[in-house]
Amino acid sequence: MTVLDNTKPIGISVNKFENFSEWYIQAILKSELVDYAPVKGFIVLRPYGYRIWGIISKTLDERLIQTGHENGFLPLLIPESILAREKKHFSGFTPEVYWVTEAGDERLSEKLAVRPTSEAIAYSTFSNWVRSYRDLPLKMNFWNSALRADIKGTKPLIRNSEFLWQEGHTVHTNEEEARNESQDILEIYREIIEQHLAIPCIGGYKSEKEKFVGANETLTLESIMSDGKALQMATSHNLGQNFSKSFNIKYLGKDDQEHFAWQTSWGLSWRLIGALIMVHGDDRGLIIPPRVAPIQIVIVPIFKDKDAPRIKKAACEIKTTLENTGFRVITDDRNEYTSGWKFNEWELKGVPLRINIGKREIESGSVELVRRDNMDKTHVSCDDLRSQVTELLERIQERLFDQAKALLNKNISSAANLDELKSIIDKKGGFVFCGWCQDQKCELRIKEACGADLRVIPFDNQDLLKYPNCVCCKKKAFRVAAFAQAY
Amino acid sequence: MTVLDNTKPIGISVNKFENFSEWYIQAILKSELVDYAPVKGFIVLRPYGYRIWGIISKTLDERLIQTGHENGFLPLLIPESILAREKKHFSGFTPEVYWVTEAGDERLSEKLAVRPTSEAIAYSTFSNWVRSYRDLPLKMNFWNSALRADIKGTKPLIRNSEFLWQEGHTVHTNEEEARNESQDILEIYREIIEQHLAIPCIGGYKSEKEKFVGANETLTLESIMSDGKALQMATSHNLGQNFSKSFNIKYLGKDDQEHFAWQTSWGLSWRLIGALIMVHGDDRGLIIPPRVAPIQIVIVPIFKDKDAPRIKKAACEIKTTLENTGFRVITDDRNEYTSGWKFNEWELKGVPLRINIGKREIESGSVELVRRDNMDKTHVSCDDLRSQVTELLERIQERLFDQAKALLNKNISSAANLDELKSIIDKKGGFVFCGWCQDQKCELRIKEACGADLRVIPFDNQDLLKYPNCVCCKKKAFRVAAFAQAY
Repeated sequence: MTVLDNTKPIGISVNKFENFSEWYIQAILKSELVDYAPVKGFIVLRPYGYRIWGIISKTLDERLIQTGHENGFLPLLIPESILAREKKHFSGFTPEVYWVTEAGDERLSEKLAVRPTSEAIAYSTFSNWVRSYRDLPLKMNFWNSALRADIKGTKPLIRNSEFLWQEGHTVHTNEEEARNESQDILEIYREIIEQHLAIPCIGGYKSEKEKFVGANETLTLESIMSDGKALQMATSHNLGQNFSKSFNIKYLGKDDQEHFAWQTSWGLSWRLIGALIMVHGDDRGLIIPPRVAPIQIVIVPIFKDKDAPRIKKAACEIKTTLENTGFRVITDDRNEYTSGWKFNEWELKGVPLRINIGKREIESGSVELVRRDNMDKTHVSCDDLRSQVTELLERIQERLFDQAKALLNKNISSAANLDELKSIIDKKGGFVFCGWCQDQKCELRIKEACGADLRVIPFDNQDLLKYPNCVCCKKKAFRVAAFAQAY
Repeated sequence: MTVLDNTKPIGISVNKFENFSEWYIQAILKSELVDYAPVKGFIVLRPYGYRIWGIISKTLDERLIQTGHENGFLPLLIPESILAREKKHFSGFTPEVYWVTEAGDERLSEKLAVRPTSEAIAYSTFSNWVRSYRDLPLKMNFWNSALRADIKGTKPLIRNSEFLWQEGHTVHTNEEEARNESQDILEIYREIIEQHLAIPCIGGYKSEKEKFVGANETLTLESIMSDGKALQMATSHNLGQNFSKSFNIKYLGKDDQEHFAWQTSWGLSWRLIGALIMVHGDDRGLIIPPRVAPIQIVIVPIFKDKDAPRIKKAACEIKTTLENTGFRVITDDRNEYTSGWKFNEWELKGVPLRINIGKREIESGSVELVRRDNMDKTHVSCDDLRSQVTELLERIQERLFDQAKALLNKNISSAANLDELKSIIDKKGGFVFCGWCQDQKCELRIKEACGADLRVIPFDNQDLLKYPNCVCCKKKAFRVAAFAQAY
């Protein structure tokens, strides 16, 4: 059998910070997370990528079930007349809609939209389910894929014409409960993103210009990628009564009167996989935070022919021990690859911890642990393995977060005037905190001047004293806003 | 607070055996499994239905992972040119395809099919992944929804224009391995359907006329519904090299030569939920087999005002005990409904076991257990509760299977000539076993004479001695075939 050489044929050929865009594409393709599909803007999610999405979605699903949400499934196709019922929503989405116009050989009498989002179809259904205050709150979630014809450039996982996501839709008897729901959901999203994906976020509101079409307010979590561009991680919308009035969702209250309901919608997509690659990866490939890693530990038995059986056996025992402790672990005992080739492959795939075990280790009753994040190596006695592995994985998780937190902090600046803002955006990127008069004209002028969007009006808006004037028009500032160029 | 009266407003108003079709629709709508969607032929899966699908799909997914399959996600939209690459497959599906022809305001240069099934898009992708025998077998599975414009009448869950399913697609180096895969999968499907859904199946082959378009052979599991009509439960296709040649899936063998690969595809859908309702339900509503029941046990505390606190507390303790044993259990302690109303609701929803606990039970340290399948009641000491519940649920599961088995047996007949066949189909329905010459003309004549399809050529074909002649043309029979009218 040919033993393949350790010549890094599988590695990434560019430097992350020199050519970030090409690095990202090589990282996700060579690690076999995704592949391009035959239709422009669409991708195939491969098993390794699917498993990351599976872990993220299972974690979120459990939190949603715990907090009283229920799953369902809504039709993919939405008649144009139903999509059109909420006017702003329709005009916002219609440029991106894929339209079904034929079934078999027949032309349809009404065009059907391929789900760009499910507010319209969900609420036309909810209006049949909601009768009395006893039916509320109605808190539903839907795992599906949504389609939006790309109007900007596409980037796999970050912006595609189709994406896997969940979309939550809730109905409440009063405004306060709906507002609390939209906030609670944002905090659940933050928990997943910060504690599991190890990416810190800035939480806050979208501006009128940037909010979801049809919402009263949109809450957002924004993060920074390694190239200094911002990425919207997840959003939660307080819809007020806009949709309940368009879709006639009314309930009979305790006062025996009919009232329009209050609603929210919110979503989180596979974009988060793209984000964690961008934030944590390095020139060797991915670095997946342990909590969302499909493989948390890879065991590589290192052997020459005559030692193979007992070394493989020892590797197998270690695997069983760690699996029984609850870790996701594999052994790579393929004969046709060198150890070096294997190291490269699992580093490329971002497995957080590797265990090397060879003749020397067996004789000393120890193994070698290699961290993926900083490549540190330690020898550990087999007796301490479980506790050492547990602790190391926790430390890796923490260090990735700390590193991402440092990246975010490094990418937060402030500006007092448009020239300063423009200069920071051009030279350094990242979020620039500024005072803002709340006039959309200033928001548009800033976009025109330096390509930066108003990403988020942070919840924590006490800094207003520091920014008394609008960065653009110099009039009194009413909000602190974070501007950035974004994906 | 108004206490609602026990007047069965929620019950089913028709008899299962007098008006099966109406009974089915009322059963699935009133139990809140599904709802109609605004587009004809489409449905909404409500939380209770989604949870059944969740349990079925989790059970199957674990078996598929155990047997070396991996999940992924394929694009929803398939260019016409790719769908057209396998000619038979294309001509078979094209009358049912929903076509996307526009994105936003723009007309597309090529029509895109909304996924009717993913052979074409999967195999155009696999052809990039498969290089050498080392890459094989490739065993993938996809959980998604497929769309087929209804060409026959629709029936919720049984035949819809969109359905949730899984579709498996595998690639092998040789014919035997592919054939084994298609057989192994059928046996996994049988295990799920017989052991979990408690519905016995007849396994066998489809005829040339009925097989999957593009396959060499289709393996099927067929069951009988309570009205004597057959239902195809799941199919597994041995694709031979038909698709690998159309999509150019070649591998470099150990012999250093290029070979076309061998393939299979297979699927199982939410139709199974419809089947279990049809087979097990009764005039009170659904009866869900314990293994797939979202709620296996409902505890109903029965109280007047002053006893409420301690009876509710006892119910809560029982719930904790049973949950810790691993059961899916809820307590219905709503004040605004009478006990009788609650009994009706949970019977309608088919919860397999109910626990009643009132003042009398608390005083005697016991509870009342009520089986949903035969409505038998027993009193059980709280000390024996866990073991009694475990045993009862197992017995219910077994009895539902035995009952369905009796239904199947009752619906198996045999016929020696066309008049006999026609008479049985007209009067009694069910499967009619006959000798068959293997000529498609006879299959078509039978369909014309009595509306029965050739559902399955059973694996167990040793009965051929009993059926020496074709039921239609009287020539020598080469196969035993089971004919039936079907959904």
